[in-house]
Amino acid sequence: MKPLEGMLVLDFAQYLAGPSAALRLADLGARVVKIERPQGGDNGRRLVFKNLVSDNDGVLFHTINRNKESFTADLKNPEDVEVVKQLIKKADVLIENFRPGIMDKLGLGYDEVKKINKRIVYGTVSGYGVDGPWVKRPGQDLMLQSLSGLAWMTGSQDDLPLPIALAMADTYSGIHLVQGILSCLYRRFKTGEGGKVEVSLLESILDLQFEFIATYINDNYTLPKRAKVNNAHVYLPAPYGIYTTKDSYIALAMGSLATLGEVLQIPELSNYNDDKSRFEKRDEIKLLIQEKLNTDTTANWIKKLKEVNYWCSEVLNWKEVINHPAFTSLDMLINVGRPGHRDIITTRCPIRVDGETYKSNKWAPALGEDTEKIMKEYGLKKGGQN
Amino acid sequence: MKPLEGMLVLDFAQYLAGPSAALRLADLGARVVKIERPQGGDNGRRLVFKNLVSDNDGVLFHTINRNKESFTADLKNPEDVEVVKQLIKKADVLIENFRPGIMDKLGLGYDEVKKINKRIVYGTVSGYGVDGPWVKRPGQDLMLQSLSGLAWMTGSQDDLPLPIALAMADTYSGIHLVQGILSCLYRRFKTGEGGKVEVSLLESILDLQFEFIATYINDNYTLPKRAKVNNAHVYLPAPYGIYTTKDSYIALAMGSLATLGEVLQIPELSNYNDDKSRFEKRDEIKLLIQEKLNTDTTANWIKKLKEVNYWCSEVLNWKEVINHPAFTSLDMLINVGRPGHRDIITTRCPIRVDGETYKSNKWAPALGEDTEKIMKEYGLKKGGQN
Repeated sequence: MKPLEGMLVLDFAQYLAGPSAALRLADLGARVVKIERPQGGDNGRRLVFKNLVSDNDGVLFHTINRNKESFTADLKNPEDVEVVKQLIKKADVLIENFRPGIMDKLGLGYDEVKKINKRIVYGTVSGYGVDGPWVKRPGQDLMLQSLSGLAWMTGSQDDLPLPIALAMADTYSGIHLVQGILSCLYRRFKTGEGGKVEVSLLESILDLQFEFIATYINDNYTLPKRAKVNNAHVYLPAPYGIYTTKDSYIALAMGSLATLGEVLQIPELSNYNDDKSRFEKRDEIKLLIQEKLNTDTTANWIKKLKEVNYWCSEVLNWKEVINHPAFTSLDMLINVGRPGHRDIITTRCPIRVDGETYKSNKWAPALGEDTEKIMKEYGLKKGGQN
Repeated sequence: MKPLEGMLVLDFAQYLAGPSAALRLADLGARVVKIERPQGGDNGRRLVFKNLVSDNDGVLFHTINRNKESFTADLKNPEDVEVVKQLIKKADVLIENFRPGIMDKLGLGYDEVKKINKRIVYGTVSGYGVDGPWVKRPGQDLMLQSLSGLAWMTGSQDDLPLPIALAMADTYSGIHLVQGILSCLYRRFKTGEGGKVEVSLLESILDLQFEFIATYINDNYTLPKRAKVNNAHVYLPAPYGIYTTKDSYIALAMGSLATLGEVLQIPELSNYNDDKSRFEKRDEIKLLIQEKLNTDTTANWIKKLKEVNYWCSEVLNWKEVINHPAFTSLDMLINVGRPGHRDIITTRCPIRVDGETYKSNKWAPALGEDTEKIMKEYGLKKGGQN
């Protein structure tokens, strides 16, 4: 039995943060119904990289909303809200990431929802928390990376601040939301009552940096400098980083500089014996290492370094990873293409339960695909409650 | 009531991935006991940035292990293992991230543990999953970023592959572990039985890239190129990225290039009207924008762009974020210094429950600090069971 079997989740959310939280609940066995406006639905349907679209929805939408159903309702129409409320009575979890205040205006704020279902766990993602001067700013990922210090600490000293090319804040707040929701469901078995879980892009992306922010604060508020050469970390000493070789790249993790000096035959490395100089002189050390690494191939260096158990690795692109036996042995790919449409290949849930991986091929629903079925199944009625 | 109150978690894990999962459970109300070897305990105690140490443990250890207790046991000594098994009988959750096979050798593998407590949820973090050719490689974060494609896709086209200066794989697998554990606890209320949850650094860091890997695969396995100029994303068109201004930096998110051209007074931007040229000619577009942005200050540009609702932001370092009212209003900092020792300031749990934030000041335990208390409290006896 999948862990969350029997759980009903209503996903009012759009784009990535909220929908990715609902996706994980679906991965783990919950039934997830997207509640979407009849005109266009989730704006994420139109979020497209490289014009990749299938059956009018972007590939991104397909990956984020696989294994869900779609129920359309016009939340500005009281009759539709009434129907949605009938569904809310049956639900275990509600997820939304509208701008603050919207759900209240629609009559679907937590206080209202709790009145009709005290067992529901209500999960909200905001951009910047519940108050403060940024609370009305758009919750957009690049802005969050830029405002939180993350872009500033990434890259090398002479680079611009460098954002990470992933939706870090969205993804991270989505998984925090899942943690909060599941915790409240645990509590519900003891108290019989649900709860409200709130996360924000800002708090989540700050949490991602918790070790570093703590280091900065407890180091007497001293801002670190990014390394000039092959930067990989603001706080770790040489040789930590990625280097070129004669034919490709190599990543060198932390380890004994003395050992490295022997294997690479760089006697000068023995001049940097203490932690302090390994950190403060990291750029000159890295330049010495870089020069030597250029004289042989990645495979040869890795062979030599493995002999002395020095932690290092090749640097792969997606093609190389995906074709590697280490990836194929994980059996991570699933096809969630809609029946009658193109294949949509994506990765499965990364969590293994009781030795099993979950590889549902249920596609992302077309807009409103399941409305009628759900109306019947739950006996929902338009105007039925008024 | 905190959601996980009454839950007992045994944290056998070391360093970051496993301990950060246990930390989140502690944040949300669980009682977490670290099981540590008497000689030195968790190796994470000696993981130090910038020589920041308090009471013989690194500041990182303090932040990752706050709000836990420490119980020492020599797992190579059968008498101690027997005592630990008495504690396992009382526990809801066990977390470990030893190399594969170690817990089995110690007689504490899942099959063994299940025999003495069928209700336990047993969580494991490995480096590379349960099999495959990499299964014995060290699970070190830089290696995972390098092997998974993440380093390759970060940075600009003429840079080396660029790792992110955070322990991405560790952090991410830790939160996936929490999701799996809480799901199995939900199921336990229905079945009366626990379960085994396995995550790996590799699967988690691939999952982090799921939208991108899906785009790559469904784009007929065409590898994207990083932008040459101000890169922020392999798949998004201009102007997405961070730029310099006359006095600082500015981040420009996606938005109308026409609007941007009007505000910045760059008539040439109207030559790039379609998605295709905005992506394929992103570097030349970005150069035009960069040149103009250098002529005025960040504050002035932001003022002008806000007037037309163009999504943009300043780029802050940690000092600027932490001193900003938007941060102080979040009330995120807690002091987890040990009694009689220096302050250790770190950020609280990012999840808000029922409108509350949890700000426990319980410090990270000294090695074995709670052994005696726990022995008495649970009536554990050395040699008592044999």
